[in-house]
Amino acid sequence: MTPISQLYTPINQDLLAQLKTAVGAENIFTDLAILEDYSHDETEDLRYYPEVVAKPLDTAAVSALLKLCNAHHVPVTPRGAGTGLSGGALPVFGGVLLSMEKFKAILDIDTENLQATVEPGVITEEFMDAVAEKGLLYPVDPSSKGSCFIGGNVAHGSGGPRVVKYGTIREYILNLEVVLPDGSVIWTGANTLKYASGYNLTQLMIGSEGTLGVVTKIVTKLIPKPQLSVVMLGSFPENEKACAAVSAIFRAGIIPSALEFMERRGVEWVIRFDNIRFDLKDGVNAFLMIEFDGNDMDVLLRDCEKVNAVLEQFGCTDVLLADTAQQKEELWRMRRTMAESVKSNSVYKEEDTVVPRAALPRLINGIKEIGGRYGFESVCYGHAGDGNLHINIIKAGMSDEDWKNKLKDGIKELFVLTAALGGTISGEHGIGLVQKEFMPIKYTEIHLDLMRSIKKVFDPNWILNPGKIF
Amino acid sequence: MTPISQLYTPINQDLLAQLKTAVGAENIFTDLAILEDYSHDETEDLRYYPEVVAKPLDTAAVSALLKLCNAHHVPVTPRGAGTGLSGGALPVFGGVLLSMEKFKAILDIDTENLQATVEPGVITEEFMDAVAEKGLLYPVDPSSKGSCFIGGNVAHGSGGPRVVKYGTIREYILNLEVVLPDGSVIWTGANTLKYASGYNLTQLMIGSEGTLGVVTKIVTKLIPKPQLSVVMLGSFPENEKACAAVSAIFRAGIIPSALEFMERRGVEWVIRFDNIRFDLKDGVNAFLMIEFDGNDMDVLLRDCEKVNAVLEQFGCTDVLLADTAQQKEELWRMRRTMAESVKSNSVYKEEDTVVPRAALPRLINGIKEIGGRYGFESVCYGHAGDGNLHINIIKAGMSDEDWKNKLKDGIKELFVLTAALGGTISGEHGIGLVQKEFMPIKYTEIHLDLMRSIKKVFDPNWILNPGKIF
Repeated sequence: MTPISQLYTPINQDLLAQLKTAVGAENIFTDLAILEDYSHDETEDLRYYPEVVAKPLDTAAVSALLKLCNAHHVPVTPRGAGTGLSGGALPVFGGVLLSMEKFKAILDIDTENLQATVEPGVITEEFMDAVAEKGLLYPVDPSSKGSCFIGGNVAHGSGGPRVVKYGTIREYILNLEVVLPDGSVIWTGANTLKYASGYNLTQLMIGSEGTLGVVTKIVTKLIPKPQLSVVMLGSFPENEKACAAVSAIFRAGIIPSALEFMERRGVEWVIRFDNIRFDLKDGVNAFLMIEFDGNDMDVLLRDCEKVNAVLEQFGCTDVLLADTAQQKEELWRMRRTMAESVKSNSVYKEEDTVVPRAALPRLINGIKEIGGRYGFESVCYGHAGDGNLHINIIKAGMSDEDWKNKLKDGIKELFVLTAALGGTISGEHGIGLVQKEFMPIKYTEIHLDLMRSIKKVFDPNWILNPGKIF
Repeated sequence: MTPISQLYTPINQDLLAQLKTAVGAENIFTDLAILEDYSHDETEDLRYYPEVVAKPLDTAAVSALLKLCNAHHVPVTPRGAGTGLSGGALPVFGGVLLSMEKFKAILDIDTENLQATVEPGVITEEFMDAVAEKGLLYPVDPSSKGSCFIGGNVAHGSGGPRVVKYGTIREYILNLEVVLPDGSVIWTGANTLKYASGYNLTQLMIGSEGTLGVVTKIVTKLIPKPQLSVVMLGSFPENEKACAAVSAIFRAGIIPSALEFMERRGVEWVIRFDNIRFDLKDGVNAFLMIEFDGNDMDVLLRDCEKVNAVLEQFGCTDVLLADTAQQKEELWRMRRTMAESVKSNSVYKEEDTVVPRAALPRLINGIKEIGGRYGFESVCYGHAGDGNLHINIIKAGMSDEDWKNKLKDGIKELFVLTAALGGTISGEHGIGLVQKEFMPIKYTEIHLDLMRSIKKVFDPNWILNPGKIF
């Protein structure tokens, strides 16, 4: 078999000129400083340089670019805001880095049908805000919502804290305009809430990490925006019991709009990093942050009471209730800046495990046990309501040698545990570059071959984001 | 190109003997009476006879059967309860009819994780009831829930009345055990609420109408069951205005748990067919049936009031409020037996159009206008909250000749209209046999070719449910 890197042709001057004609010379960049800007994302400290950065302005330019690269066997790596945590936007084989940053238009917010049409380079939070101004909700808000693009969210099948009530981005994407590697353009579905018209290419595209086509327009579903919310923060002496409380909340008949877990050390680091005023009591080792939304404060407070009773059964020592906008924002800020705080504190690796909800206690205990054996520490937090735990592996006292060589085995054990608990390799960060070696822990060769063969259907020359997923 | 029927080999005595060995002789049937039973579904009056009916008992038997049929190029048509309305379960090329009726076990209702594992031959309502006994809700209830199988629901990406609040079956299927045409068995995903681990084969399988693999186990998500509900029935002098009220309800910030439209004639026929006591007033031509569910009666009644105010703006003349179990059940029975009532009244064809919600008034007017030109009558009803309208085309005074030849052009016009309104060919019934000729109205050849190529990845010998979708 030909090594994958030998499938590709370097970009020569002639092809560069053609790319400039296709996309507009002012949208093609080869200066080293710019190549460097696009050589990394938020994944650890990995760097891969593209040969060319392209920032096309419209679908026609994306089409022309792909057609050219396909004909010349040049790899193309689509990129949103570069906030990914799995290396999905890294141009591992060079070629063209296709930045979608100029696709910045919110084309339509249709208040009759509760739908919007948006370009992939729109920042998720800006889209949410625009929609909220019309009294509507687009609930898919990854923690990076202030910087990530909605196109990247589609590529990764993004989640975020509100999945627990509202579902992932899969449940909000109705239709996609996609440029295929040969330059042809399709709409994957229809702008309808139901769809039973052949294979669902919209759903296939979501989470495909830019390996099947380049999304150039996105039609989303919107819903009426709930008027009210409250946030509770419960403190626990033990990780395990906090995790065990999670599934009990649902068993009590309650679906919160967010249910987040945070370990003490994450909170400590956030307080320091972000200058947050918070009275972190001794003996508290874990937190559950629980949000309820709706249109009736009595109902929300009644849900809080019911949940309070559940939390007490699991040893919760203290509950804060935030009902002013400022209090709620402070708690959410704590949760949202946690990744950044961890990053600023230590060399780390982040794994994005997901298990059935009730397996969380076994997952968190297993993480600590594995860490103990391999000598790494960990700070865990995440969307506990979905069974989705982000594990930040902290270098701490681990030697450079062990960090480089031995750690991999420990991470492998983490995924073996996750799979054994009925979970999988990634809940929302995607497989990208850094998780792909772990895929065989969960998936058989038959399964991975189906994925590869689907890739071949869309991209026979394997030019789109090669080196990712499998 | 070889005609598709020439790809297949008739089942000879030798192969029949092998099938008996693979599946158990007592599970293989060739008597004409049985072949006849499986020669039709609920789609019009179409009949196609299989050569053999197989009723395997477990995954291993399905695997052995497919392996054999794949090796011998024998077509295999998987079948649930045979309640389909698009001819998806008709064995158009003969071969083996693979009935999943013996896969009847509810294997697990996991009240810790709010998940269930169920076999595809379980009747949807029986599953819903079993889940409800544990205080949980599986909300995907097609109108045929009393007879359809959950496996058929997966195959068609089923919806039903409660999609408007709860989403389609896509949002409740976490993982599937699937036998591929070569006999290999995979799990498509993981038993988790989030999934960003490569191409989502679970979502690809849902709605693929038995053309990619045979589902043998289904893992579903469950949610806490709301304790209370109320149902409103609003009467309107005009179809168009009733339809226009639909999107206004959502704009008022309300998401009902069901929002159904019914034309007067549908109600008339149901009253006669099912002996329902209902005071059908003069001047009423359309109904909206609106359900709210939750855990607080005050909130539900407040929503009713808000919706009442909206309905009045659209000329609603009368509102019934049902809040006892009996009243609610009577209204739901009216809606649920409508298809059967229409069927008992006339020769008919049913089309399953879906459009963006606010386009419903233009859709219903267009249906009547097209019917006027082609000489057919129609009774429309359906899941208006999703923009999903079932059009029952009634033969009435149309000549046999016109019904056979001219009608097709009229139906084509219906789909051209649907597509022009941003909708698609089927919202929940699937494409199957009878809608496939209309697919090019909505989808380009490039798009259909992608679907065919995906089919080839899973089923290179094209043995699984051939003749469907494309």
